[in-house]
Amino acid sequence: MVRSFEDYVNSLRDGRVIYYRGKLVSDVTTHEILRAAINHAAELYRWQMDPELKKYLTFDDPQYGTISRFYKVPRSPEDLIERFKLIYNTTLLGRGMFNIMKTIGSDALFGLMIASKQLDRIRGTNYFDRVMRYYERVVKDDVTIAVAQTDVKGDRMLRPHQQEDSDLYVHIVGRDSDGIIVRGAKVHTTQSIAANELIVLPYRNMVKEDADYAVAFALPVNAKGTVLIPRPLREVEINMLGDEFPMGKTNVEVETLTIFDNVKVPNDRVFLAGEYEFAAPYGLTFALYHRFTAISYRAALADIILGYAKLFAEYNDVETASHIRRDIVDIITYKEYLVSSAIASAEKCIRDPNTGICIPNPIYTNVGKLTANAKYLDAVKDMIDVAGGLLADIPSTSELSNPTEEKYMVKYLVGKKGTDARTRIRLFQVAREFLSALGALLSVGMIHAEGSIEASVIELYRSYNYDISRTAALYNADLAKIDDIKKLLEWW
Amino acid sequence: MVRSFEDYVNSLRDGRVIYYRGKLVSDVTTHEILRAAINHAAELYRWQMDPELKKYLTFDDPQYGTISRFYKVPRSPEDLIERFKLIYNTTLLGRGMFNIMKTIGSDALFGLMIASKQLDRIRGTNYFDRVMRYYERVVKDDVTIAVAQTDVKGDRMLRPHQQEDSDLYVHIVGRDSDGIIVRGAKVHTTQSIAANELIVLPYRNMVKEDADYAVAFALPVNAKGTVLIPRPLREVEINMLGDEFPMGKTNVEVETLTIFDNVKVPNDRVFLAGEYEFAAPYGLTFALYHRFTAISYRAALADIILGYAKLFAEYNDVETASHIRRDIVDIITYKEYLVSSAIASAEKCIRDPNTGICIPNPIYTNVGKLTANAKYLDAVKDMIDVAGGLLADIPSTSELSNPTEEKYMVKYLVGKKGTDARTRIRLFQVAREFLSALGALLSVGMIHAEGSIEASVIELYRSYNYDISRTAALYNADLAKIDDIKKLLEWW
Amino acid sequence: MVRSFEDYVNSLRDGRVIYYRGKLVSDVTTHEILRAAINHAAELYRWQMDPELKKYLTFDDPQYGTISRFYKVPRSPEDLIERFKLIYNTTLLGRGMFNIMKTIGSDALFGLMIASKQLDRIRGTNYFDRVMRYYERVVKDDVTIAVAQTDVKGDRMLRPHQQEDSDLYVHIVGRDSDGIIVRGAKVHTTQSIAANELIVLPYRNMVKEDADYAVAFALPVNAKGTVLIPRPLREVEINMLGDEFPMGKTNVEVETLTIFDNVKVPNDRVFLAGEYEFAAPYGLTFALYHRFTAISYRAALADIILGYAKLFAEYNDVETASHIRRDIVDIITYKEYLVSSAIASAEKCIRDPNTGICIPNPIYTNVGKLTANAKYLDAVKDMIDVAGGLLADIPSTSELSNPTEEKYMVKYLVGKKGTDARTRIRLFQVAREFLSALGALLSVGMIHAEGSIEASVIELYRSYNYDISRTAALYNADLAKIDDIKKLLEWW
Amino acid sequence: MVRSFEDYVNSLRDGRVIYYRGKLVSDVTTHEILRAAINHAAELYRWQMDPELKKYLTFDDPQYGTISRFYKVPRSPEDLIERFKLIYNTTLLGRGMFNIMKTIGSDALFGLMIASKQLDRIRGTNYFDRVMRYYERVVKDDVTIAVAQTDVKGDRMLRPHQQEDSDLYVHIVGRDSDGIIVRGAKVHTTQSIAANELIVLPYRNMVKEDADYAVAFALPVNAKGTVLIPRPLREVEINMLGDEFPMGKTNVEVETLTIFDNVKVPNDRVFLAGEYEFAAPYGLTFALYHRFTAISYRAALADIILGYAKLFAEYNDVETASHIRRDIVDIITYKEYLVSSAIASAEKCIRDPNTGICIPNPIYTNVGKLTANAKYLDAVKDMIDVAGGLLADIPSTSELSNPTEEKYMVKYLVGKKGTDARTRIRLFQVAREFLSALGALLSVGMIHAEGSIEASVIELYRSYNYDISRTAALYNADLAKIDDIKKLLEWW
Repeated sequence: MVRSFEDYVNSLRDGRVIYYRGKLVSDVTTHEILRAAINHAAELYRWQMDPELKKYLTFDDPQYGTISRFYKVPRSPEDLIERFKLIYNTTLLGRGMFNIMKTIGSDALFGLMIASKQLDRIRGTNYFDRVMRYYERVVKDDVTIAVAQTDVKGDRMLRPHQQEDSDLYVHIVGRDSDGIIVRGAKVHTTQSIAANELIVLPYRNMVKEDADYAVAFALPVNAKGTVLIPRPLREVEINMLGDEFPMGKTNVEVETLTIFDNVKVPNDRVFLAGEYEFAAPYGLTFALYHRFTAISYRAALADIILGYAKLFAEYNDVETASHIRRDIVDIITYKEYLVSSAIASAEKCIRDPNTGICIPNPIYTNVGKLTANAKYLDAVKDMIDVAGGLLADIPSTSELSNPTEEKYMVKYLVGKKGTDARTRIRLFQVAREFLSALGALLSVGMIHAEGSIEASVIELYRSYNYDISRTAALYNADLAKIDDIKKLLEWW
Repeated sequence: MVRSFEDYVNSLRDGRVIYYRGKLVSDVTTHEILRAAINHAAELYRWQMDPELKKYLTFDDPQYGTISRFYKVPRSPEDLIERFKLIYNTTLLGRGMFNIMKTIGSDALFGLMIASKQLDRIRGTNYFDRVMRYYERVVKDDVTIAVAQTDVKGDRMLRPHQQEDSDLYVHIVGRDSDGIIVRGAKVHTTQSIAANELIVLPYRNMVKEDADYAVAFALPVNAKGTVLIPRPLREVEINMLGDEFPMGKTNVEVETLTIFDNVKVPNDRVFLAGEYEFAAPYGLTFALYHRFTAISYRAALADIILGYAKLFAEYNDVETASHIRRDIVDIITYKEYLVSSAIASAEKCIRDPNTGICIPNPIYTNVGKLTANAKYLDAVKDMIDVAGGLLADIPSTSELSNPTEEKYMVKYLVGKKGTDARTRIRLFQVAREFLSALGALLSVGMIHAEGSIEASVIELYRSYNYDISRTAALYNADLAKIDDIKKLLEWW
Repeated sequence: MVRSFEDYVNSLRDGRVIYYRGKLVSDVTTHEILRAAINHAAELYRWQMDPELKKYLTFDDPQYGTISRFYKVPRSPEDLIERFKLIYNTTLLGRGMFNIMKTIGSDALFGLMIASKQLDRIRGTNYFDRVMRYYERVVKDDVTIAVAQTDVKGDRMLRPHQQEDSDLYVHIVGRDSDGIIVRGAKVHTTQSIAANELIVLPYRNMVKEDADYAVAFALPVNAKGTVLIPRPLREVEINMLGDEFPMGKTNVEVETLTIFDNVKVPNDRVFLAGEYEFAAPYGLTFALYHRFTAISYRAALADIILGYAKLFAEYNDVETASHIRRDIVDIITYKEYLVSSAIASAEKCIRDPNTGICIPNPIYTNVGKLTANAKYLDAVKDMIDVAGGLLADIPSTSELSNPTEEKYMVKYLVGKKGTDARTRIRLFQVAREFLSALGALLSVGMIHAEGSIEASVIELYRSYNYDISRTAALYNADLAKIDDIKKLLEWW
Repeated sequence: MVRSFEDYVNSLRDGRVIYYRGKLVSDVTTHEILRAAINHAAELYRWQMDPELKKYLTFDDPQYGTISRFYKVPRSPEDLIERFKLIYNTTLLGRGMFNIMKTIGSDALFGLMIASKQLDRIRGTNYFDRVMRYYERVVKDDVTIAVAQTDVKGDRMLRPHQQEDSDLYVHIVGRDSDGIIVRGAKVHTTQSIAANELIVLPYRNMVKEDADYAVAFALPVNAKGTVLIPRPLREVEINMLGDEFPMGKTNVEVETLTIFDNVKVPNDRVFLAGEYEFAAPYGLTFALYHRFTAISYRAALADIILGYAKLFAEYNDVETASHIRRDIVDIITYKEYLVSSAIASAEKCIRDPNTGICIPNPIYTNVGKLTANAKYLDAVKDMIDVAGGLLADIPSTSELSNPTEEKYMVKYLVGKKGTDARTRIRLFQVAREFLSALGALLSVGMIHAEGSIEASVIELYRSYNYDISRTAALYNADLAKIDDIKKLLEWW
């Protein structure tokens, strides 16, 4: 079943505890600033009712009827390709802003299905059934989900149990027959304020002494003891200053510091509780799906940068300059590398032997993700190089309200013969905003979100299969035989 | 003579025409937003009265008495080293914000002295005397100067005289016995609103048909027909939203679209008027001084980035991680390359044969400048990599006003054992602002200000002396003799 | 039908004119130096008889029986994936040396099929039939083919007809009823000395005055007037000096300057003769297939570099160093990007409407190829960084023949505890050779072969479809409507 | 006193033990291959007698009379600038090949003077006097010196005393009243075969258990038990194959594995013997001078690359292409960065308080050196990009001996109108050799010689003074006061 826009918005009026600028927020759906983030999330519901868009956004499941396509469990390369397109297309529809609300939730659920099944087989637990019952509820109620994984971490050189304050990683502080009690805080919880549900996952590998920190569970956002403190949404607030930044009005996501102050979690929502050897697989399986998500939405974000660069080249009439062409081709390369990584990840996906679910290929996913992080600012730099210095200091469109200023600006800020000065001014202004409050978020996010560069390096180094390369080098040095190569030709 | 802080501020209440957000600004020195830029400029006057700082800021000239050190004409390598230190130190004093007000004016004046003398010798004109009389007035009145060089340019593929609207480059539209009348507009005029004087220079090389566009002159900012339209100063405005961004309150510079609507310029302020072959040297000589200025202030700006990176590494306790060290060393490399370029430019400066004035070495200046532009975002990326994702989404210090939020934030946003959570929160918040509204300005400015990357490439390719390299390669291939090398050993 | 190793080698004793080191080569198959290149080519015939390998190398064609798999015309994504694996696997079998002999020929033939069919449809010519009859002969006789495309070009700023010497591009100098006579020279003709056939293609776009230069044809290598002058094969010759470089003995390809001194071409081997508007499509269609080939073989070459790097890290015991891991992951990234580009090029291939043949997707192919060129030396640098300085100056294994030297070398050149010094010495020595004579070839070749970086930039800039990006940016700036986005969601 | 060419060459016939290709070398000065390296070293003696060159190569010392300028102890910035020019100029004279023979020896001696004086002051030893007496002999006899510092190191994760074989770092194995006995082996000993003397220095920091490894001393190369095994000199050997590579005939340096098989060192040549805390300063002080040397000679080597690139651009007539200009400007940037680092290192040198000797500034030296290593292959890539594919496969000039081939080559391998084909062929051929056998040496050497990239990173991170940067960031965040900045303005 798919939920209506109105039902979704109403569902957020549930007593959740959010602060902003020092004040408790009484109704997040009408809050002057925060509502922009709610609107962005709500578009998923608007679109899935739209006659033209519902085919992209929904899916007829044999078991559950019409459901959100985000929740379709991938069982083939084609399913993953479809998922890539779904994320890419909804990012385009969101003015380049990724819509995380059902994506990250499904990333977490697919990861939990695989990891819990593996745990059950080894330990005889029954977490998988809990996950599937929770999944069924999610699908039927068509809910939005935020995922909280990154602990606040305190001293980065210390393990969870070594921290001065034992709460610096979320942990189990009590257990009874009904469930567990948890305490701690997570950062980077994107769109928690617009979510119905929160899934909490372990951040890192754990040792025996960390057992109470090996915990995964789901909660409604209004669960008692849950507190959300968002970052300042400057990209929304600036619209109050007289500039127009369309994304800031309609397409914003917000991250929170998410506090769990002795929160009770009933047993059927607990998916890991002390099995410390499984903290790492729980985290990594989710991370892999989420990195596939990352390369999907970043491809669409790259389109914005590419599009602005192309438009600036046209408006400035510099398309014949060789260095400008190189800048633009470098942005194309950035984008299309993400697309080809996604295609290869899907085509060469790995079928989980226990559940039959398809996992994006970890090599192509991690290589694509690593490049997405490492090269984002280069793409931005290319766009800036094409635009020219006016991108820094063009007067605001708010100046156009004064006829004297308007006369001068329209006369003097024209570009190529035959182009329109007003359009050019607006393009420069909005692109600057994209580099401003939002730019700070994007610059940092594109380098750290879904895992830092170093995290990808470590993961790739560890998980890569060096058989072919090593044998190829040894054979090159006549230290292996051609028969050794022959054995490896079926690598595909 | 050096002017007092009060005299300077008062001097700006002169009827100048500035608009902001669609409204005419009656008094720029008290305007809620723009006054931050005035304050920044005024600090130069405050500092030169400060008992500790006046030795850096002033200079005892045999001819003019105590004058601003910025206006000291460089006549030796030591003078240029002193100038580097002056610009570097005042940028540090300005929280990392360069203080352009007397620097760019002196860059322009030194350039005008050299270029006008050369023109006079060839053409028998007497521009040099006009420049020197104007310089004397500047020094004695201790004025601030903005320089307007970049025309609005319209279609970048067309020369000035080919543009559809003949005003897209500033040009002479009338002449009489007293002077000339000019029309057109310039962009990127930094701190014009805080300047007493405006020096206008030609932007590019010209051909005969462009003769009326080959024009250089000086004007008081309140000259009739001069109109200033600034960019929006978001980095100031955000302080009204509850965040604290110290630079936004005190250390801001603003660029304007600067319109000359049939402005009359008396003869003694006209420094070039139709001698089109000299448009390029007038522009380039200024540009060279100004690029030396650029590497000087950017070295100090790099200190801010380096300092934040080092502090984040300490607060997060990640100093032993190899990739973190590499990030920080890359920022050090960025900064120290600028410093060594400045030292080499000064030590190997070129003495103008006509005036005896020292010109920064064009090779080291351009190579340093090119690198400063091309690698700025890499330094920013390094800092982001060290900081981690919290740089994007740490809650604002404005949340600390609420005791509940304060309790959670102070508990959960601590870093390394023994460090203070409040300081850490503030460092992350302010650094994010540095990447936000100011970040957009810096990202673009550091790539385009004082000339784009491609401009430096063209200039370097053109002006480089290939004698040694070519002979070295030919000798390597036995196509030159060792005697050919011997002749080049006195290259120093 | 597939030919035997012996038949192939014998077929090269056909009176072909080859010079080496100033002497006419009487029998290339027994020439002390050149035979290494013949051996490499001949392995294709040895492998296709090998019981284990023939399944990879051959293919049962319904029309022609068992044929070389290289000549299978791609008609589906799967066919292109198979082609990628064929090229990748045979490169592994060749110690990392690509085996061009049937690959480039089939690249040319597929290109000719598509381009000639298009030409025939527009002009009513019958080139396609000639191409297909020629293809049939190639398949049945199982021949090797070299392709000559790059003209010697003289002054790069001048078109073919503007050159001082009219022969600097290959052109038609005579026509009669049987055929045409051609004159000129091509460079970079890889493995012409080991080929049975030469296919000659136009290098660039042409204008009307260049009509005689718009020529494509096929020739037996021993055609009268055809002269081959190879580059010096230092990587073979060094084996005479006492070092062992296995690739130099067995797996070498050689390029020639290929001269056509008034060569007669019969009509049935002429595929383009004056239709100058088609010079560009003839060249580009081949180039696209050949760039797909490039990313396929370069992925296997990257394995050699990766394998050496991993082995050096192990032998030196530096696997735990973070910067070493980063080096190795960067090589992985280089390789896997090529693989994912190939997968995406195949999966998103374009079906030629006239022939039904599948063309690799030009975007992913060009983006992959551009990156392969631009980043090759970075991968080499990473390997060098891992290896350490001994890669430059380890004594040769030839020193081991002296017992005194052997004693010292085995004692002192050990690495990690438990590893073998002799293996380590050999790995360093052979890897150095890989960077030496062969390294010069590879460094240059990887940057220029199959098209330079700039050629890919120009092609990508020109052919890219900017619809989505431009609309995405305009929508971001509220200058397009969501309906404009909706129309583009079926881009796949 | 300066020695004659003949005296120097004769001095090498001293019974030294060198092997090559498995054979004991009876007279290195007449050995068919190795004599090229002797010739290169001997040029230093030829030049210092040359009427035009002696002013660069010699120096009138008040104490010792006319001595080699290399041995002049630097006591001012000017002395270091002179040293930079000396190294740069002699590298130019050596066809781009650095001449290490007196440079590295003086680097080691300056380092020993400073480090031994410091040790003496703390420990009351008298090493400084030994160093000075040794220096006096060096200067008076005008000898050549090689320096052996890098131990063979075995397992890189283990300290000297932890290695399985205790000889994997050079160590003291016996002591008596006359001196010490040492055993072990060093790699990368450049030009030991052409040296009169060997200075041996410790490679790394040591702990108490490593005390016997903390050893520094000097030896004549023919000292009993000293054995030299060179790398294969392929760049010399290829001249026997018919190609002409001028550098390979005359300007070559060779590295050896240098074995100390129970060598006795008399006390007056022992400069450190067990004082393990001083192993690091002994190594680092030398390294700093040697890195200053590195940036000096690499600037001249960069000239060769730049010169070839410029010549190729001219011969191919591609100077107007924007990407070609960018390539060339990037090589200029590489070179001039090294020059400006050297100037800054000299100008801002540090005076050792104990000896008054000037030490190159460690920041600018290390930053310059780090860049020299990290960017060398980029400069090579730029040159390749300019040259085009012919750089890989142009036929050898040896083909020109055959009149038929000559006719074709001269006709077809011309470039820009009016240029000479033979010169173009030769330039391409010799530049290829530069990338071939020599290229392997250079590629590796430029990344590892005088310390790896990571070594520079660690050193810079450790030794950098963060005071200004940290205070600047804190002041930016209003966490420091302007008075804190004021205190730092005298940083120069």
